[in-house]
Amino acid sequence: MSDPLFDAAVDGDRRSLARAISRIDDRATGTLEAIGSLSPRRIGGPGKPFVLGITGPPGAGKSTFTDKLITRARTRGEKVAVVAVDPSSPFSGGAILGDRLRMEGHATDPNVFIRSLASRGHLGGLSRASGQVVDLLDAASFDLIIVETVGVGQSELAVMEVADTVLVVLTPESGDVVQTMKAGLLEVADLFVVNKSDRPGANALQRNLELMVHLDMPLQSTDSHWAIPVATCSATENDGIDEVVDSALAHLEWCCGPGRPAWDRRRAVGRVRTFLDVVSEDARSYALDALRDEHAALRLGLEAGDINPYQAAADWGTKG
Amino acid sequence: MSDPLFDAAVDGDRRSLARAISRIDDRATGTLEAIGSLSPRRIGGPGKPFVLGITGPPGAGKSTFTDKLITRARTRGEKVAVVAVDPSSPFSGGAILGDRLRMEGHATDPNVFIRSLASRGHLGGLSRASGQVVDLLDAASFDLIIVETVGVGQSELAVMEVADTVLVVLTPESGDVVQTMKAGLLEVADLFVVNKSDRPGANALQRNLELMVHLDMPLQSTDSHWAIPVATCSATENDGIDEVVDSALAHLEWCCGPGRPAWDRRRAVGRVRTFLDVVSEDARSYALDALRDEHAALRLGLEAGDINPYQAAADWGTKG
Repeated sequence: MSDPLFDAAVDGDRRSLARAISRIDDRATGTLEAIGSLSPRRIGGPGKPFVLGITGPPGAGKSTFTDKLITRARTRGEKVAVVAVDPSSPFSGGAILGDRLRMEGHATDPNVFIRSLASRGHLGGLSRASGQVVDLLDAASFDLIIVETVGVGQSELAVMEVADTVLVVLTPESGDVVQTMKAGLLEVADLFVVNKSDRPGANALQRNLELMVHLDMPLQSTDSHWAIPVATCSATENDGIDEVVDSALAHLEWCCGPGRPAWDRRRAVGRVRTFLDVVSEDARSYALDALRDEHAALRLGLEAGDINPYQAAADWGTKG
Repeated sequence: MSDPLFDAAVDGDRRSLARAISRIDDRATGTLEAIGSLSPRRIGGPGKPFVLGITGPPGAGKSTFTDKLITRARTRGEKVAVVAVDPSSPFSGGAILGDRLRMEGHATDPNVFIRSLASRGHLGGLSRASGQVVDLLDAASFDLIIVETVGVGQSELAVMEVADTVLVVLTPESGDVVQTMKAGLLEVADLFVVNKSDRPGANALQRNLELMVHLDMPLQSTDSHWAIPVATCSATENDGIDEVVDSALAHLEWCCGPGRPAWDRRRAVGRVRTFLDVVSEDARSYALDALRDEHAALRLGLEAGDINPYQAAADWGTKG
């Protein structure tokens, strides 16, 4: 069912867009229907809009790339939206807030829309909120949508499902290749960037990432295989950043051409995962509602210790 | 139903204990029943065993306290178990592994059992695994059970539900009070420790934590209120650590005495949350099983983009 606020947002009213995003973030009633009535262009294929994910640990330099990407897109006359997701990483040192401030240069540009998502919820909440916001920004005709997360948990990586191209920014300080793999970053990355390339360990990290990426894989991209580039740069020295942006655009071109089946496949997997995340979130909400009744025997039994929570959950599932 | 492996673990066989923990970690069939048949002592009250949670960001110095606590408990002839949980924090710089290595001094002591949990799962998986492992270690007559997590996400904080006393270790580098609050650390902490007290910002962090902790609260503990101490120390200089350990023991004493109702209340809330986490995890597994059938119309529809995942999840819930 169509919704006046969402309609106005799609038609380009920034205030309505901001308010519609707040409604998504708050899980207001009717949001699901309003989102369902949108016509996102991206279901048809990659590139319109281009959804770029940027992830990596705190302090890796993600904001520099976001800033640069905005500038490049603006010189081409494109409309840009940035969605910053930073819900569960309290120790990120306020990086995302810092990013927003550093992007202030773009804040007065009417064709740049920057917004952070506050969704605290569990895995499904984050994934749902970011996916729905991208659907809305897509329908609102943005050309480039940048989704930025601090990649230190599964919730943050799940958000990357929504992106056409995922840029993973690392630094020598952020850990070695084993940790990168353990984090699942290898599975989401379309390109790696080793930032702060002047620091000790940068070359070793790059070399090991390349070894890992090309393990039993062709060194060159083919129609069915994207050879993940491992770039180095020094963002503060403004050295190597343009090449990274070029690589991101090259991946998009590949997705639109020979890599289209791979892109389709990833989108398909992404929709399945989103479904699972949301089911899990909803089950929690539903159980919570059932416990809210002051006199609920289950709640009283759990509180008193008469009911084992693992057993109760198993019983809930079979009756559920 | 009793299980021979779990019985042997409870009777003190270390190899059986390690294998039983692996079964919990792997969610092997029959685990729920085996855990249900145990008789953990802790349902009766705090202190037997003493379950101590230690959390804080990577590099805060948690291992130093763990090591010191083990040594203190051993001089009193107590059996000690350490459970290290580090599933979703790939950028912790290998802190937990480092901790284990640093604790090697205790590794040859037959009365010290150190084990890490690999559970990758979602919120419910972690919470369940650590809760069940503590139940098992409790039944196996350990006197002190230390549960250590890197507190950078909700999953890690959820693990702290299992503890009688929670020690939150911070450093001036790990963020300010606002971030500590945002992280939910104020809600789980029974004592704060500002480590690396010689670094700039340590005094300000301590002062602000104290302001926050005592906001509208009595400065001294009463029967119904525990005044959270904010200690400073320099773990590498071995300065102030004994006082921290004393504070942890003071909190336990308070729980066993005048604070008993507060302890009971927290355990009650913990059991409710565990139930919710596990329900949510199970719903996900159940939906996943349903999708596994190659010909499942839902899976095919999601993959093809014919079915909106948010709508499908809503439909799944109502039929579920």
